[in-house]
Amino acid sequence: MDPRRAETGKNSDQIQSGHVYHLALDIGGSLAKLVYFTKNDEHIVGSEKKKSPMKASGISNSSRNSPVLNGRLNFKKFETSKINDCLEFINSMKLHLGGVYKIVMIAMVMNAGCQQPESPGSQTITIKATGGGAYKYADLFKEKFRISLDKEDEMDCLVAGANFLLETIHQEAFTYMGNQKQFVWIDKNDLYPYLLVNIGSGVGMIKVEGDGKFERVSGTSIGGGTFWGLGKLLTKCKSFDELLDLSYRGNNRAVDMLVGDIYGGMDYSKIGLSSTTIASSFGRAISENKERDDYKPEDIARSLLRMISNNIGQISYLTALRFGLKRIFFGGFFIRRHPFTMDTLSVAVNFWSKGEAKAMFLQHEGFLGAVGAFMSSDKHGLKELLANQKVERPPSKLSFSLDQTQVPQQDGELNGDESIECSVYGA
Amino acid sequence: MDPRRAETGKNSDQIQSGHVYHLALDIGGSLAKLVYFTKNDEHIVGSEKKKSPMKASGISNSSRNSPVLNGRLNFKKFETSKINDCLEFINSMKLHLGGVYKIVMIAMVMNAGCQQPESPGSQTITIKATGGGAYKYADLFKEKFRISLDKEDEMDCLVAGANFLLETIHQEAFTYMGNQKQFVWIDKNDLYPYLLVNIGSGVGMIKVEGDGKFERVSGTSIGGGTFWGLGKLLTKCKSFDELLDLSYRGNNRAVDMLVGDIYGGMDYSKIGLSSTTIASSFGRAISENKERDDYKPEDIARSLLRMISNNIGQISYLTALRFGLKRIFFGGFFIRRHPFTMDTLSVAVNFWSKGEAKAMFLQHEGFLGAVGAFMSSDKHGLKELLANQKVERPPSKLSFSLDQTQVPQQDGELNGDESIECSVYGA
Repeated sequence: MDPRRAETGKNSDQIQSGHVYHLALDIGGSLAKLVYFTKNDEHIVGSEKKKSPMKASGISNSSRNSPVLNGRLNFKKFETSKINDCLEFINSMKLHLGGVYKIVMIAMVMNAGCQQPESPGSQTITIKATGGGAYKYADLFKEKFRISLDKEDEMDCLVAGANFLLETIHQEAFTYMGNQKQFVWIDKNDLYPYLLVNIGSGVGMIKVEGDGKFERVSGTSIGGGTFWGLGKLLTKCKSFDELLDLSYRGNNRAVDMLVGDIYGGMDYSKIGLSSTTIASSFGRAISENKERDDYKPEDIARSLLRMISNNIGQISYLTALRFGLKRIFFGGFFIRRHPFTMDTLSVAVNFWSKGEAKAMFLQHEGFLGAVGAFMSSDKHGLKELLANQKVERPPSKLSFSLDQTQVPQQDGELNGDESIECSVYGA
Repeated sequence: MDPRRAETGKNSDQIQSGHVYHLALDIGGSLAKLVYFTKNDEHIVGSEKKKSPMKASGISNSSRNSPVLNGRLNFKKFETSKINDCLEFINSMKLHLGGVYKIVMIAMVMNAGCQQPESPGSQTITIKATGGGAYKYADLFKEKFRISLDKEDEMDCLVAGANFLLETIHQEAFTYMGNQKQFVWIDKNDLYPYLLVNIGSGVGMIKVEGDGKFERVSGTSIGGGTFWGLGKLLTKCKSFDELLDLSYRGNNRAVDMLVGDIYGGMDYSKIGLSSTTIASSFGRAISENKERDDYKPEDIARSLLRMISNNIGQISYLTALRFGLKRIFFGGFFIRRHPFTMDTLSVAVNFWSKGEAKAMFLQHEGFLGAVGAFMSSDKHGLKELLANQKVERPPSKLSFSLDQTQVPQQDGELNGDESIECSVYGA
């Protein structure tokens, strides 16, 4: 699937027919993630499904009677090294024009009859941003489009994003094992505490006990950056996605030393290790008279992926056990809904916990920080409203359904450009 | 230091002046380890320091009056790929002539006036052996020298060896941090339970509760085989020791992504990460437009060593915590008393335990399995006698001192050929 097609497809159509009203950024070491809200059409309906003078004037009444804005939450990523593409995208879509308004202000703008904000040249616009790049690229954003990045703490955003998605989005969490994907129903009242494992360049493990209640309790330096860094040195791959694709076709037995290699093809059953268990990652390379280029790059990619996923799964489980956390959610762009990665993480958690714990994944794993930054615009507004709305309205009106037509399938461009149907409403 | 000089030095002199009376083997995936006992001279003294008719006749009386044999426990290693060198060594030293006798039989042989056993051609000799190679090379030993390898379980030997060394050898255990080596006095009655982390090609973690009481509770495939396997593919090193030497001179900052790289040189103090903490091992290779050969091999070796040692330290600590084990002993040939490896393991355990746990190392880390196989010849004889002797005699007579003149210093040939002064006596 050509990612360009997705860019010029539904998203831009939506933007032409509707409006962009909110944008947040998460600029990481390797990827810049955008979350923005677009309105589907001009309908502004109150929760009682009728217009009221209060709404028309843009002044909010009680949340029970607030105007509702139907639209989509859109997700988009760029390579951080191509940050100018990201800037151009923001500019071309006029995304940042909505950024000056807090979500509670949306109704006002809407109700003023498509009143346009002032032109971007006339004032400095502020956009919520998180990640290291929010500092690194602040000047670039200011110089090019007079956009000021309002920096939010990375971990705050990560946790806020995960909490929001898990509490609000229907079918956000799922398990994956043996090619079986199974959505998990999360009871909002039984969500906390949980372990959030965010796999970016490195891996952070966060004990989450509630909104704003969290602690980074562990982590490992063996993460996505290790996979891509070592992969780059060991293969001729030009991108992370290419390496990930390769791993899907490889066989780690060419590179890894298995238990059977040591015990003459036998299991070491006394200690419960089968002959196919990896005894030593890359250990077979010791005894063979081969150099790097004598190995197939797909086999190397596969071994790397198994080594790293298995290690993260093991440390995650041990950490969850240590803090008595019964749920482990994996997020971050390393996963990219890649079946083999999820399967290895799941098998590792299953193996080390002897079946007692289950790895869970998030549909929007790569956008936790960006969603958190998006939410941070009005911590006591948007989040609360959505939460209240969920209680006060029938679930069918509020469960945000993932627009599957926007999700490319396993083509190395996973989790790139998608959107969620949703409704927000002004206070 | 020329390892050949060590071989033709004190060891062979000892063998010429004395006798070899016991041999055991541990043949691993990459190294074959030998442990053998040589008698220093012809003195056979009873524990009361006088000869008795009982001793002369070779028939044991009570353990209090048993004859004592002064000598040395010798340690030697060969690369498994050069197993013929090992066989030649055994043959040249006539080590295997002692192998047929159980340790309790030594006094009999001695007291019969240097009676020689039958020639090796006339009978099949049995030697205790452990490790995967005990199976793989069994035929070779039999065909070449009519040596039959009596196979012992690898983990049994590992634990028996560690227990024996920790209980019996003075200054066997030590801590290492910030270039400071500190011997730890081990109270035999307070030794158990402990976690034994054996770092070979892979890593095994064993909860040890006493003699023969142990369970493999964890492990990781990221071990010595990963260091050497990845190192071989990433550098032009020809041996494990060369790679280890290289790592000593390298700087991991050239290859790793540090916290400061992400946060513009700042600490992420909110979560207690300093700017020099490794955020992502090999993560710097992502952003740089460099290939494998553009990096210094010593920097790659250093990053590999830190990545692997740090990971082992972390998983070990989490595992010890899980099972309430207050002591962690690291063994296996990966360490080789390499200061930087020990330092990284210690720092990892210290970091993750917030100073509550300490990594400990063993002087004879690479020979645990071989010592265990050596002990297995007469489980109820040698071990018990040595233990009893320790109680019944003044410690000065029993503490086995490491012969430092035999220990090469940090030249890549560490822990290769050494010996311990010791005394054994017949039952």
